[in-house]
Amino acid sequence: MHAFRSHTCADLTKSNVGDTVRLSGWVHRVRDHGGVLFIDLRDHYGVTQVLCDGDSAAFAELEKVRSEWCIRIDGSVKARDESLVNPKIPTGEIEVYVRELEILGKAEELPLIVFGDQEYPEETRLRYRYLDLRREVMQENMKLRSDVVASIRKRMWAQEFREYQTPIITASSPEGARDFLVPSRLHPGKFYALPQAPQQFKQLIMVSGFDKYFQIAPCFRDEDPRADRSPTDFYQLDMEMSFVEQQDVFDTIQPVIQGLFEEFGGGRKVDADWPQISYKDATKWYGTDKPDLRNPIKMDVVSDHFRGSGFAIFAKLLEQDGTEIRAIPAPGGGSRKFCDRMNAFAQKEGLPGMGYIFWRDGADGMEPAGPLAKNIGPERTEAIREQLGLGVGDAAFFLGGKPAAFERVAGKARDVIGEELKLTDKDRFAFCWIVDFPMYEADEETGAVDFSHNPFSMPQGGLEALSGDPLEVLGYQYDLACNGYELISGAIRNHKLDVMIKAFELAGYDEAEVRKRFGGMVNAFQYGAPPHGGCAAGIDRMVMLLADEQNIREVIMFPMNQRAEDLMMAAPSDPTNEQLRELRLRVLPPEE
Amino acid sequence: MHAFRSHTCADLTKSNVGDTVRLSGWVHRVRDHGGVLFIDLRDHYGVTQVLCDGDSAAFAELEKVRSEWCIRIDGSVKARDESLVNPKIPTGEIEVYVRELEILGKAEELPLIVFGDQEYPEETRLRYRYLDLRREVMQENMKLRSDVVASIRKRMWAQEFREYQTPIITASSPEGARDFLVPSRLHPGKFYALPQAPQQFKQLIMVSGFDKYFQIAPCFRDEDPRADRSPTDFYQLDMEMSFVEQQDVFDTIQPVIQGLFEEFGGGRKVDADWPQISYKDATKWYGTDKPDLRNPIKMDVVSDHFRGSGFAIFAKLLEQDGTEIRAIPAPGGGSRKFCDRMNAFAQKEGLPGMGYIFWRDGADGMEPAGPLAKNIGPERTEAIREQLGLGVGDAAFFLGGKPAAFERVAGKARDVIGEELKLTDKDRFAFCWIVDFPMYEADEETGAVDFSHNPFSMPQGGLEALSGDPLEVLGYQYDLACNGYELISGAIRNHKLDVMIKAFELAGYDEAEVRKRFGGMVNAFQYGAPPHGGCAAGIDRMVMLLADEQNIREVIMFPMNQRAEDLMMAAPSDPTNEQLRELRLRVLPPEE
Repeated sequence: MHAFRSHTCADLTKSNVGDTVRLSGWVHRVRDHGGVLFIDLRDHYGVTQVLCDGDSAAFAELEKVRSEWCIRIDGSVKARDESLVNPKIPTGEIEVYVRELEILGKAEELPLIVFGDQEYPEETRLRYRYLDLRREVMQENMKLRSDVVASIRKRMWAQEFREYQTPIITASSPEGARDFLVPSRLHPGKFYALPQAPQQFKQLIMVSGFDKYFQIAPCFRDEDPRADRSPTDFYQLDMEMSFVEQQDVFDTIQPVIQGLFEEFGGGRKVDADWPQISYKDATKWYGTDKPDLRNPIKMDVVSDHFRGSGFAIFAKLLEQDGTEIRAIPAPGGGSRKFCDRMNAFAQKEGLPGMGYIFWRDGADGMEPAGPLAKNIGPERTEAIREQLGLGVGDAAFFLGGKPAAFERVAGKARDVIGEELKLTDKDRFAFCWIVDFPMYEADEETGAVDFSHNPFSMPQGGLEALSGDPLEVLGYQYDLACNGYELISGAIRNHKLDVMIKAFELAGYDEAEVRKRFGGMVNAFQYGAPPHGGCAAGIDRMVMLLADEQNIREVIMFPMNQRAEDLMMAAPSDPTNEQLRELRLRVLPPEE
Repeated sequence: MHAFRSHTCADLTKSNVGDTVRLSGWVHRVRDHGGVLFIDLRDHYGVTQVLCDGDSAAFAELEKVRSEWCIRIDGSVKARDESLVNPKIPTGEIEVYVRELEILGKAEELPLIVFGDQEYPEETRLRYRYLDLRREVMQENMKLRSDVVASIRKRMWAQEFREYQTPIITASSPEGARDFLVPSRLHPGKFYALPQAPQQFKQLIMVSGFDKYFQIAPCFRDEDPRADRSPTDFYQLDMEMSFVEQQDVFDTIQPVIQGLFEEFGGGRKVDADWPQISYKDATKWYGTDKPDLRNPIKMDVVSDHFRGSGFAIFAKLLEQDGTEIRAIPAPGGGSRKFCDRMNAFAQKEGLPGMGYIFWRDGADGMEPAGPLAKNIGPERTEAIREQLGLGVGDAAFFLGGKPAAFERVAGKARDVIGEELKLTDKDRFAFCWIVDFPMYEADEETGAVDFSHNPFSMPQGGLEALSGDPLEVLGYQYDLACNGYELISGAIRNHKLDVMIKAFELAGYDEAEVRKRFGGMVNAFQYGAPPHGGCAAGIDRMVMLLADEQNIREVIMFPMNQRAEDLMMAAPSDPTNEQLRELRLRVLPPEE
């Protein structure tokens, strides 16, 4: 017989009754029923009930075992009493009578109980991650993550993509965030960097003629602590294609992601229609460039109805340049109580409040209510109602000013309204492409123009468009939003050196600077660069959505804590003097 | 029609004749046949011949294109003249008459020609890697690498392994080589390290109850330059299993590796019989722990035949402790010329020489020849011949002394003899497991005992064995050798804390030191650690063998040069003052 097991703890059924078997696993729970010991023996695959009484030679030793000891048992399979059958587990029809026991690994007193649902502080969970990971939910999350990544690979292969590995120890690639540096021992004083993304390498792979590339790629960013992301690294599905336009990338990646969500979404509805919404419309309709389309509410501009109206605040506001009034329709929100609550929400978010109108059954049929309606009068009120398509029992909220000032809160209000009115379908994944991102943005204070997203994207209209107002230039740049999260970001790249130099010039980088910072890619573009484009999808975030978890650390095997510390392995730690000497580095004392 | 292509450059056949098509790719070669331009247009998939004459509106512009320009052409498919059909390529029956041309990316004068087999210095190839990679052999190598890695994954999944990712930014894990350090910005003065291997993490995954783990894992070692390895990082197939013994690991991994070599070996024979050879026998028989079993020569100890014999040098040598005489049989090597050449080889390798005997047809049948035979006389000579199973036309070479002093050269001599006598079958992959490695070795100078391989391996005989002579202790540690290369290394791990503490004690580490250096794992082993074991296989090396390349950089997309520099991306490079300030580091001047 095998040294450790003839079966896993999920294998045995009624058909094994009478067999002599060997099982190994962890003691999940021990119950002592007056001279009969019951143990739930657990391994990666399942749980089997084993038992023992004084007639067995193993009894005395089995009495000593405690939760999470790792043991091997030999025994014989017995059918459970009809009344004791547990239909919830595959081994629920049998139990194993223990005749021999080997203790493979004892356990000290546990800092964290594996069975049950007891909550522990994150510090405890991360310090004893190997115990935390034994819990069923974590086993399932890790299996899910592994299966998701495997499925992505299969789907990319099916589309004739090959996975190519790009360097992890490389040069600094200025993607906006901070690089992790790696000091060089062979070249003291010089440093490598860990890649923020394989952006330049995947573009070089296209210049090298590989046509279709993907990689499940680790990306490294030295981020300041933030709850929803790892402070050090994350994984992305990185892909790139040559000789394509934007729609080709969409047509390639949609089946991969949609198929993935259908496979692992646990029966939740997965939208097949992925609308393409311009960045401008997205912020107008949803107040964000990652809208949650499970929520049917679509905001609209209603400035005209307030211009010169009796509602002086808005009327005056509209006299300033760049202002507008936006309405958030709230079907089913037509009660003063609800409207007041939403108004209070806006105030809590730092706005003066949200004006509202709601429509109710009055003496003469439908009548608008709320202070705003009175101020602007019935005609304008009716025009607003018609524009928004509302009726009795519905409401509309109004925000005014410069969109940049209220848009974020408007988006949040839309979320809250959708939630509270139960308009947002929780059991659904709703996707949309956000397209036509502006290439540039102006710094609010200095007015300086800089890239708003990826500097390597192709500007729509090419060189010609770059001779006009930079703030009007759109890029072939796109995001995929799902349920309010950004899942994918990508672009058709700028493969034309003259257009790239010009694009950087507008953002204040001269040619010498561009050649210095992106030398590898700029040089390559001189030797027959093909048109190309692609995207990157966040693995951790997709798994989080599929696992229905709120914290990224629930879907990472050994995550850092938010202070970028690995409590289990004690990282980061002090280097040895020898290490510092070899790198020719000195650590300076903290500044006073 | 698609913006860039209706077909790839490998698609068109006779069935497309008459079609209007669009192709994109690189100008492989241009030939001007007096008013008719022929261009081999190349993409990732193949080559299509396109042509143009003065009747086409595109002619004037097509005359300007040069090698490696990236272009799009529209044209019509024509059948080639019977006499001009090229059966070697899929598109050899047709050509495309160009009607329209778009230049997608021009190329400057090329530092490296893509077509043909011209050799370039490695510096040139790495600096312009994107051109180097366009060459057919590099395209094939990279596709092979990608396909090999994909196949490994499929084979591991088929064996019910899941891939789990382990941290890349972590704590120093003392595996013997130097760590790359990563300074922490959030904790200035402290450092992370890049993992030399996921060794501790995969063991923690077993302690976490995951049963079967694998990963195509990047490993980082700050190595001094060496021709046959990357100076910074490499990839391995890393795997680990719980509740297993050594043979279980062998039974799991052999089908994966054997299947891989059958799939990608290009028809070369792949041995299905993988003998298990002890470390002791391997060094005795082959002079190395990574023998090339394609070579049938097996060395043997022949000390007894020389003890007290007339060959004074060996007879005296054998009076010293720890010496022996070893024979290298050389079937078919029975000529003075060959024997003298091998003797000269040994001298070139720093030994005094190799004595030899060879057997020839004499007047009275078989007769031994060579000075050695005369010195020891016919009886001893015949006994040697019988022991080695040699006959007329064969030879044997002899080396004497302490094995450590001559074994390396003996192994090399065995290789050379196998090559020269054409005994080594080049079209074959021959595998063997090397088992029973010693746990410890003594430093030659100081006599201090240290681990000879992996300190985490389980010593054979457990705690008891560790109370005897450490140098006699064997480990459940194994390597897989193939054609003279080490492909895999692995072990059954030491999951018992008391055995581990004792094992480290013998190597001079007290318990406090062990807990400090391997805290994560030591702590985990207190909470019910399962028996487990696994191995790691070198991806780069396997691909190198399969691609029949001698240099690891031929199978890596963007390798460092031997000085650990990325010439294309200019890494490593100078950090900014701001970066150093944030890390609180100062670079010291070189020591005088």
